[in-house]
Amino acid sequence: MSTRTTGFRRTYKIRFGDTDPAGVMYFPRFLHVFHEVFEDWFDDDLRMPYRWVLEDTRIGFPTVHTECDYRKPFRFGQNMEVELTVVRVGGKSFECRYRGRLAGDTEVRVDASIVTAVVDLDSFQGVPIPAPLRKALLDRATVTPPEVPVGHISAAGE
Amino acid sequence: MSTRTTGFRRTYKIRFGDTDPAGVMYFPRFLHVFHEVFEDWFDDDLRMPYRWVLEDTRIGFPTVHTECDYRKPFRFGQNMEVELTVVRVGGKSFECRYRGRLAGDTEVRVDASIVTAVVDLDSFQGVPIPAPLRKALLDRATVTPPEVPVGHISAAGE
Amino acid sequence: MSTRTTGFRRTYKIRFGDTDPAGVMYFPRFLHVFHEVFEDWFDDDLRMPYRWVLEDTRIGFPTVHTECDYRKPFRFGQNMEVELTVVRVGGKSFECRYRGRLAGDTEVRVDASIVTAVVDLDSFQGVPIPAPLRKALLDRATVTPPEVPVGHISAAGE
Amino acid sequence: MSTRTTGFRRTYKIRFGDTDPAGVMYFPRFLHVFHEVFEDWFDDDLRMPYRWVLEDTRIGFPTVHTECDYRKPFRFGQNMEVELTVVRVGGKSFECRYRGRLAGDTEVRVDASIVTAVVDLDSFQGVPIPAPLRKALLDRATVTPPEVPVGHISAAGE
Repeated sequence: MSTRTTGFRRTYKIRFGDTDPAGVMYFPRFLHVFHEVFEDWFDDDLRMPYRWVLEDTRIGFPTVHTECDYRKPFRFGQNMEVELTVVRVGGKSFECRYRGRLAGDTEVRVDASIVTAVVDLDSFQGVPIPAPLRKALLDRATVTPPEVPVGHISAAGE
Repeated sequence: MSTRTTGFRRTYKIRFGDTDPAGVMYFPRFLHVFHEVFEDWFDDDLRMPYRWVLEDTRIGFPTVHTECDYRKPFRFGQNMEVELTVVRVGGKSFECRYRGRLAGDTEVRVDASIVTAVVDLDSFQGVPIPAPLRKALLDRATVTPPEVPVGHISAAGE
Repeated sequence: MSTRTTGFRRTYKIRFGDTDPAGVMYFPRFLHVFHEVFEDWFDDDLRMPYRWVLEDTRIGFPTVHTECDYRKPFRFGQNMEVELTVVRVGGKSFECRYRGRLAGDTEVRVDASIVTAVVDLDSFQGVPIPAPLRKALLDRATVTPPEVPVGHISAAGE
Repeated sequence: MSTRTTGFRRTYKIRFGDTDPAGVMYFPRFLHVFHEVFEDWFDDDLRMPYRWVLEDTRIGFPTVHTECDYRKPFRFGQNMEVELTVVRVGGKSFECRYRGRLAGDTEVRVDASIVTAVVDLDSFQGVPIPAPLRKALLDRATVTPPEVPVGHISAAGE
């Protein structure tokens, strides 16, 4: 059972080339940065190097749904701290949440949710999440299901 | 009252540089393409040149919310037809929907919704949608409220 | 012998997302746009669809050298007319020049030269330019070598 | 007189979204990464925060010339070590060289030279390099002029 209270964190420095004529980060760039954090999370926290997974196991992770609230802008030169948490682990997909704060600040300025499918890269068809990855995701899932008392009959499916 | 049955359409050719090692369009790129269509829509359909609005009236359009379903991939070299429709006109924001189809096909492969705020670019504070833009948006809104017959009592709020 | 006096031309509209906080096109973006024109040139002028060449013949075109002069900026909302000309056809590589002008203007604002190698995509090793492509390139080469009169002894190597 | 034997170094991790269908870094992306290193160099080595220079002094640094040799590709997941050196300090412009190596390796895979002008951001006209920046650049210039023997009369202008 996970006792983590925070997710995986990475700091990203907003670049001149990330920002638009209004002087703030161009909104599609956030999704790119969140994918960078996703890659680092595989490499540095899950310990399943992202490139290795794609190239050697031929399992891929296409994004199938994104949602993002942009509450306050980030300006060029600022540092954004991104926190990744796992919010749902399904059979053939999982969902992560990405919260962006100004480094050192508590206010969430950008709040995104990204659903990732798991596919066979050769057929592009969905496949079950491989067991080691599934275990790693569940260990990090912040929304843990309530424990079922002994003797209780559960009717819950997925 | 609008009698439009389709939205504003633009064709976008998927580029080598848009696609990732899996050979399909990298997901953050869709939001960039939808913003290109948004700019063309101002220039060519609303007839309020986007650059002119920003630079001369100092009204800006930060994106405050995005949602996107990626149902089927687009591959390098394919043409995506994007259809923009107005789905909601609020006081200080409005929402457009972007549906991406393979050119000549009816199936929606990518379906996004983007909420745009209207701000004073100098203060970055929200302001009411300017009247000419508001009229243009309402003329194009596809979800028109039903007309209320005289004498009918409506309980509908917003 | 080619009698073309101009190269292949395409107009590119400078986008909000192409421009930086200084309000002008971010310099790495030009190379991306020039590659778009390169792709269109294969598709529409050479009549050898770029994606087909890569995927079906497994011939690839990595960029091995770029040079670019940025003489005057392009601003968001402006149209840039790009003219592609072939300036050198070697054994395993060729060079194109890209000149960017404000649409309707004669002054060259951006002037680039890009050398493209021809490789086997599976080995990433250089291969001779395939004959049909070589012919097409020579037909379009603007710098044609002077004809050598019969009887003249040439000491010119490549 | 500088005794530095190496330039400013930063490691950049090649991202999924940086790479193209051939599995290697898309060539325009290198120029973006080199500009990131340029920004870090202002912030961390020159100690003149890049954003502060632009926003508070209204001095800007448009790129006026780039050259780049791409000798060997970088693949997704690899780390590129970029070394920035100053190679020329002119009156209103300066030139930096960027060499990219695989981290831990000595072979230069990508070798670029970028000329940066110094302009007044409000007029976009060239201005002399400000004295503190000029001194910092000269301190780091790797191509030092030969010492002139005492008594020698130099006719060298710029």
